Amino acid sequence: MVVLQLSGPAPVNLQAKFSILELAHGSRKHLTTLSSFSLPSLFISNSQQPRHPISSFPPVNESVAAIVFGDGSESRLYPLTKRRSEGAIPIGAKYRIVDAVISNCINSNINKIYALTQYNSTSLNSHLSRAYTGLGLGKDGFVEVIAAYQSLEDQGWFQGTADAIRRCLWVLEEYQVSEFLVLPGHHLYRMDYQKLVDAHRRSQADITIAALNSTRDQDPGFGTLKVNSLNEVAEFHVKSEREPMIVPSVQGVQASNDNSYRKLSSMGIYLVNRDVMTKLLNEYFPQANEFGTEVIPGAISTGMKVQAYAFDGYWEDMRSIAAFYEANMECIKGLNMGYNFYDKDAPLYTTPRYLPPTTITGAVITDSVVGDGCILNRCKIKGTVVGMRTTIGEKAIIEDSVIMGSDIYQKDYIQKSGKEGMAIPIGIGEDTHIKKAIIDKNARIGRNVMIINKDNVQESNREANGYIISGGIVVVLESAVIPDGSIL
Amino acid sequence: MVVLQLSGPAPVNLQAKFSILELAHGSRKHLTTLSSFSLPSLFISNSQQPRHPISSFPPVNESVAAIVFGDGSESRLYPLTKRRSEGAIPIGAKYRIVDAVISNCINSNINKIYALTQYNSTSLNSHLSRAYTGLGLGKDGFVEVIAAYQSLEDQGWFQGTADAIRRCLWVLEEYQVSEFLVLPGHHLYRMDYQKLVDAHRRSQADITIAALNSTRDQDPGFGTLKVNSLNEVAEFHVKSEREPMIVPSVQGVQASNDNSYRKLSSMGIYLVNRDVMTKLLNEYFPQANEFGTEVIPGAISTGMKVQAYAFDGYWEDMRSIAAFYEANMECIKGLNMGYNFYDKDAPLYTTPRYLPPTTITGAVITDSVVGDGCILNRCKIKGTVVGMRTTIGEKAIIEDSVIMGSDIYQKDYIQKSGKEGMAIPIGIGEDTHIKKAIIDKNARIGRNVMIINKDNVQESNREANGYIISGGIVVVLESAVIPDGSIL
Amino acid sequence: MVVLQLSGPAPVNLQAKFSILELAHGSRKHLTTLSSFSLPSLFISNSQQPRHPISSFPPVNESVAAIVFGDGSESRLYPLTKRRSEGAIPIGAKYRIVDAVISNCINSNINKIYALTQYNSTSLNSHLSRAYTGLGLGKDGFVEVIAAYQSLEDQGWFQGTADAIRRCLWVLEEYQVSEFLVLPGHHLYRMDYQKLVDAHRRSQADITIAALNSTRDQDPGFGTLKVNSLNEVAEFHVKSEREPMIVPSVQGVQASNDNSYRKLSSMGIYLVNRDVMTKLLNEYFPQANEFGTEVIPGAISTGMKVQAYAFDGYWEDMRSIAAFYEANMECIKGLNMGYNFYDKDAPLYTTPRYLPPTTITGAVITDSVVGDGCILNRCKIKGTVVGMRTTIGEKAIIEDSVIMGSDIYQKDYIQKSGKEGMAIPIGIGEDTHIKKAIIDKNARIGRNVMIINKDNVQESNREANGYIISGGIVVVLESAVIPDGSIL
Amino acid sequence: MVVLQLSGPAPVNLQAKFSILELAHGSRKHLTTLSSFSLPSLFISNSQQPRHPISSFPPVNESVAAIVFGDGSESRLYPLTKRRSEGAIPIGAKYRIVDAVISNCINSNINKIYALTQYNSTSLNSHLSRAYTGLGLGKDGFVEVIAAYQSLEDQGWFQGTADAIRRCLWVLEEYQVSEFLVLPGHHLYRMDYQKLVDAHRRSQADITIAALNSTRDQDPGFGTLKVNSLNEVAEFHVKSEREPMIVPSVQGVQASNDNSYRKLSSMGIYLVNRDVMTKLLNEYFPQANEFGTEVIPGAISTGMKVQAYAFDGYWEDMRSIAAFYEANMECIKGLNMGYNFYDKDAPLYTTPRYLPPTTITGAVITDSVVGDGCILNRCKIKGTVVGMRTTIGEKAIIEDSVIMGSDIYQKDYIQKSGKEGMAIPIGIGEDTHIKKAIIDKNARIGRNVMIINKDNVQESNREANGYIISGGIVVVLESAVIPDGSIL
Repeated sequence: MVVLQLSGPAPVNLQAKFSILELAHGSRKHLTTLSSFSLPSLFISNSQQPRHPISSFPPVNESVAAIVFGDGSESRLYPLTKRRSEGAIPIGAKYRIVDAVISNCINSNINKIYALTQYNSTSLNSHLSRAYTGLGLGKDGFVEVIAAYQSLEDQGWFQGTADAIRRCLWVLEEYQVSEFLVLPGHHLYRMDYQKLVDAHRRSQADITIAALNSTRDQDPGFGTLKVNSLNEVAEFHVKSEREPMIVPSVQGVQASNDNSYRKLSSMGIYLVNRDVMTKLLNEYFPQANEFGTEVIPGAISTGMKVQAYAFDGYWEDMRSIAAFYEANMECIKGLNMGYNFYDKDAPLYTTPRYLPPTTITGAVITDSVVGDGCILNRCKIKGTVVGMRTTIGEKAIIEDSVIMGSDIYQKDYIQKSGKEGMAIPIGIGEDTHIKKAIIDKNARIGRNVMIINKDNVQESNREANGYIISGGIVVVLESAVIPDGSIL
Repeated sequence: MVVLQLSGPAPVNLQAKFSILELAHGSRKHLTTLSSFSLPSLFISNSQQPRHPISSFPPVNESVAAIVFGDGSESRLYPLTKRRSEGAIPIGAKYRIVDAVISNCINSNINKIYALTQYNSTSLNSHLSRAYTGLGLGKDGFVEVIAAYQSLEDQGWFQGTADAIRRCLWVLEEYQVSEFLVLPGHHLYRMDYQKLVDAHRRSQADITIAALNSTRDQDPGFGTLKVNSLNEVAEFHVKSEREPMIVPSVQGVQASNDNSYRKLSSMGIYLVNRDVMTKLLNEYFPQANEFGTEVIPGAISTGMKVQAYAFDGYWEDMRSIAAFYEANMECIKGLNMGYNFYDKDAPLYTTPRYLPPTTITGAVITDSVVGDGCILNRCKIKGTVVGMRTTIGEKAIIEDSVIMGSDIYQKDYIQKSGKEGMAIPIGIGEDTHIKKAIIDKNARIGRNVMIINKDNVQESNREANGYIISGGIVVVLESAVIPDGSIL
Repeated sequence: MVVLQLSGPAPVNLQAKFSILELAHGSRKHLTTLSSFSLPSLFISNSQQPRHPISSFPPVNESVAAIVFGDGSESRLYPLTKRRSEGAIPIGAKYRIVDAVISNCINSNINKIYALTQYNSTSLNSHLSRAYTGLGLGKDGFVEVIAAYQSLEDQGWFQGTADAIRRCLWVLEEYQVSEFLVLPGHHLYRMDYQKLVDAHRRSQADITIAALNSTRDQDPGFGTLKVNSLNEVAEFHVKSEREPMIVPSVQGVQASNDNSYRKLSSMGIYLVNRDVMTKLLNEYFPQANEFGTEVIPGAISTGMKVQAYAFDGYWEDMRSIAAFYEANMECIKGLNMGYNFYDKDAPLYTTPRYLPPTTITGAVITDSVVGDGCILNRCKIKGTVVGMRTTIGEKAIIEDSVIMGSDIYQKDYIQKSGKEGMAIPIGIGEDTHIKKAIIDKNARIGRNVMIINKDNVQESNREANGYIISGGIVVVLESAVIPDGSIL
Repeated sequence: MVVLQLSGPAPVNLQAKFSILELAHGSRKHLTTLSSFSLPSLFISNSQQPRHPISSFPPVNESVAAIVFGDGSESRLYPLTKRRSEGAIPIGAKYRIVDAVISNCINSNINKIYALTQYNSTSLNSHLSRAYTGLGLGKDGFVEVIAAYQSLEDQGWFQGTADAIRRCLWVLEEYQVSEFLVLPGHHLYRMDYQKLVDAHRRSQADITIAALNSTRDQDPGFGTLKVNSLNEVAEFHVKSEREPMIVPSVQGVQASNDNSYRKLSSMGIYLVNRDVMTKLLNEYFPQANEFGTEVIPGAISTGMKVQAYAFDGYWEDMRSIAAFYEANMECIKGLNMGYNFYDKDAPLYTTPRYLPPTTITGAVITDSVVGDGCILNRCKIKGTVVGMRTTIGEKAIIEDSVIMGSDIYQKDYIQKSGKEGMAIPIGIGEDTHIKKAIIDKNARIGRNVMIINKDNVQESNREANGYIISGGIVVVLESAVIPDGSIL
């Protein structure tokens, strides 16, 4: 299976159709598309200059299109990805992971958003079309899903991110944008892409890569950059084994003296000039499948101007169940640190819903967030993300967990249990105790259940029983049924 | 001021342009508009009849238009109506009162909805246009606000409900509906209007009035009906003093023998055939201002066929602050009784919002409902409706109250208090105790405040101090500031 | 390549997992899902029966979901399908073919519409999401595109219509509908599906097939039905060679006496009960790929109750370029015959656009339709469909043709030709003569061009020159450039 | 009747609560609201300054709110305003007049738009809510109609534009904008308001007035400005009799030497800083009713910094039927001059509609524009705006006219005329000749009618006969019936 993720230690393949040397000849021939925006006038510094020069860069909502990859790896967040792409996994009581990136775009005034998908794309398509079509995306704004498709010319699936962009270029070029912003859709962070675009345009780069400023434990598949004091990328490494990060002090030496370079970790975010994109995919590397591991190193090797844009904020790449769990715990920390789900100036968008307020007949709740439409019956909740429409029974205790909630109300519960005796309704039963677990959507947890990882297992696949354990965290599957009295 | 409410003990004015006797001659000449729907075929009972006759009534979404009056009395719910019409008052943590009636229409497949307003109409207009334009109202569906307007012919305000409908008839007749459904917009109940329409059409009535089956403490301005065993309305009384309700046993006596009649209380809901509406307003009673107290009695007096449609469910007419308070308390009772805010098959619609989930650093909550985006800090909440975006400080205690919440977050609280020292943020301060109160939107309740009606006052106007007391309930005004340490 | 079309002479494959005999035992065991709708009460015929029985069938908008296949055959309408699925081909000056079926659904009150696609799906997805998300589809209404996707369980493309439905059943069953309506998305006809649903429910069928009443020249891949006087389907044939149609007189003989049967042509439209669908795809024929040629015959063979619903109106299956051309010519006949693009009660929906009115500096126009935003300069137009944004130059003559129009205005024409001399703008140049041709979107036809099929060729592939000839009709490709003075 | 127009020679009323002298003391105390945007930093000119200073002005979509007055004078465009406000009059085959101004806002990235109305507001409200709620207005964007309303404090109608803004300030201040842009809603022009905002902010003005650069025949009620070489407004005159325009040469003299000033004509467009607005309406001139004639001169008299912004493009204020007629004729001139209805970069928005393309069985059309969904039957059309859904009968001749079209199709024409003999359908009958006329919506023009103003009347009120003549132009009223054979 080919997965549309912007990472992964794929083998680098640099069979450029052009001789690299030949390209290097015209070294640093910048394929800028911005020449028409009369950049030079900005540099004029004589008395004729207006006192308040206005940027002659066009506004990003007219000049940048985002390409979001909805799929991450299908396996590392399994079983949450059993029926979904990574971007469609519920997070933070009412969102989906992809909402973070789409909201970043909207809050950065980028309103031409293409989402390319093929793995378990249905959930993502459905979410994106419901969440973002009613939303005012402004003039000519849209979130358009492009699912992998067959055509007369090509009947296969997308073979990777570069292949996907290449095959969709005829759609992506619908609007006369000057840059494409390539984005992984399954990361959690808040960035104003306008600043990235600005830095890119000022440095007159061909490509700008957003990168983590510090030594982070990031997906090695995205690679590491070696940059000089002007943030120009000199080298780009993709390695399966991480080499130790060395961040040398910047000493102002201009040449390739190693001391003058520092290393950054790529975030898999690339801003690419429109004609550079076309040249790279169709002329220079027409066989390249992956953007991060093949096209970007190739671009550097041909002497293009590749810049780094350093980012310092919170960033989580959901590389494991444990990382996803931690990202949810960010909600609880709330206003203080990490990812802030509350930012009024850069709100997180998602599907608008017509849910009633949460009804609490009795609950002692600490350090938790609670979504809409829950029904909490005399329970205790601590350090937990309680997703929308969650029903929790009497005397249940939930600690340090992620409850994703439910898509529907099981209103006919009483009726049903009358009929079928032991039917377990959606939600969490009475007297049940859950600790450090992830309960996927629509799960039916019975009464007197203990989900506490009693044997302190680190990894275990008990899918037949409705759960797995990953990194010590119990994950109950979507729609799983955990019978009364079970102890996990 | 003329208020567009469908009630009120206005003097009955029956100066029909036609002699009543003259009209009575053609007694019970039913001005039915349904003749084109070939009703008679339904009554044929010979062997030719198809075995599964399908109703030849047209579906209500193509044949009924609703006329909703957004204004109630401006004074009885004061101060909640200071800047709003009754329909725009927040209720149930995230709704507005008018949502109940509009949602009834939508859930009854009535999707042509005109809302007529003039008193404090801005809040209502704004709410309706934001809440119901994004919503799928189906083919040719809309919620259209018709605010009072000046024209060359008439430069005054609407002089009452009948006057309002009369002046807007040219708009209301835009679609070829067969009946108009006249609805007060400030009542709380759940009714399937399709059943009302069905009963109306089967009885071939000119007008059908929805009425409370039992002896309720309803607004006397709506009047009482005397109906026979066929639910035909024989008399319609509007009295300021309520006469005792007598519900006689139905004895099959056809004549005006009092025993064969029973009394019902009008709900102010009228289903009126299209051409009957035109005749009543333009020909028979062109001077009538009020629909309930003038036009309806007039219609009966002219011998039109007026039917009653008995309704048994929960119904609240918000006739006082106390009644509004009780309606909110219905939310808490939740699934068990009264008005159910949770009905999946007949959901309550309102403005979709992009609020984060509620964050609870610590709370003991019993018998309460909590809206989206609240921030609850180690407080106790009992028997309370907590509206969206409510912030509650540490050690606060809220009991038996309605907190309407806030339109915005006061994110810069710390910064501000640093600047201004004593500034009180929106929300409820630390160590504050609130009991049996209504806190309107955006109020700023300081620290160590006691809102407990300590002297057990029943009525008091302390508007200058930011509150009034009505029926023993303290009502803190919208955006009011209650200083630290206040005792109310 | 596997194409999601509901037709095609695919080999019939009836390897039911269950013995057909075994199934026949419980012969005609109707798997009705409607038992909960208390059908029996409709048949009661005693004095207790209400005089106006209302159908107890639930309304279709709550009980039927449509499954539309956007792809037809990729090849028979080539080159119109070069970059599009059949459903996305422009027709009638401003529509796409799929609009006919989607509008049928909306006008039949079916508002849960799933569109399954995989071949050139991008154009269709884009059209559907832009056209039908702003449209009021009513409560719980949607047009949701499900593109072929990879999952852990299945990494291949949809292998046919049955395979596609099977793999998407988990999505399709999201709402508690009682029937699925399976629809080819590339046919042109106007049908009230509610009548089909009604007939289906009254006959208590498991499956109902819409069929052409007369002997039409329809796609043989849909098969022919042999039905008795009760419209029960006794046989279902799929043949590549059509056998002569015999429509015997109905003689009331109940048994398999051949005289009592007549033959109908399937339209590829199937109404299938929900649980019948599940059983057929997952239990009885889990290997079947095609719905029409495998699952339907299989259902009949197992003794299910399969009914025919005869349809008499205009219907066009676009089986060739010539048929597509004729369908466009229906627009011109306008109000009189064939397919009526104007029906006020059953309008044709499509993407709403903000185009200016058509500007005509001079034109003699006969028997034509003209879309929005055209610019017609002193030309002659006869018997032609002029699509939106078409520009026609001076003294051009267009006869009996289909001009699809353009997606954009080429506003900078003068500027460009000044710069580049010979650049040909989008549209049709001066002095050009076009007769019996189809000009696809954004084509650039130069000056003094003759597109008249001067040699009266029937079939010819001149794709390198920007056109093909099919059935004697010249088809100029999308974005093709036909130089000044060309003669085709 | 009080009309909400931003013009009219109302008596100037300058009873400022403050002594003008007193105010003058703190002369030119600029009440700028932009201090928070750190303007000063723009002026810093040392080496620390970044080489590419980005404007620190906030984007207009976050910082400017538009206040559009939908009403013009009710009488000057009578009878087109009989049932409509000026803004709601159809223009250009498919638009309403107000669309020009609203589209200007949207194309200028101003997406917070309040429309204040009271005269015949229904048509405008309905149009605005249908046209602009589906449209993507971007984050926090809206077109909100505020109709005149009664409140406890004020039960009268709006007494003028200043009164209307004053009473709605509590709504208008909902968002933290820095400037209000006050706009008449019934003018036809295309302006990028961003440039106006930019000029305003750079000059650090309190108020900026858009004004016509040349000596135009504009509404005298808007007044004339006397400006110096820095575009500062020194005087503002409102006169009923126009004084001759003198445009002196600018001689650099700073003082009030008349030679250094020039005169401009106000367009009634005012950009006002938020706190300036509040101070003017509530503190300085709390009794002023009109903005243009009272508040603006008052502001100048108090020494505020009032700038002029000169505008050179096409502008039409619809001051008469003749002017409205000419504005329509601009459509025909099309791409060449005047107002361009086609501008791709600044499109004109309006209600999206699902109309079929126009069907032409035969027509000779010159220099005309034709809307959607017309049916043109063997007629001649010259120099005419043919509005949507217009039906024109055989052998009719239409010249130099404005046909507004129809809201509905009269599909049952034949049926009806069969029944009623002489019924005249909506549209223009056979053999009818129309020249230099305006045919309002839904008019029914019979056969063999001559609307040619045969006696060359200039002014005539024949409303009883369905038309008036104004400026030599025959105006047939909305829904008027002109019998067969009439000669007008």
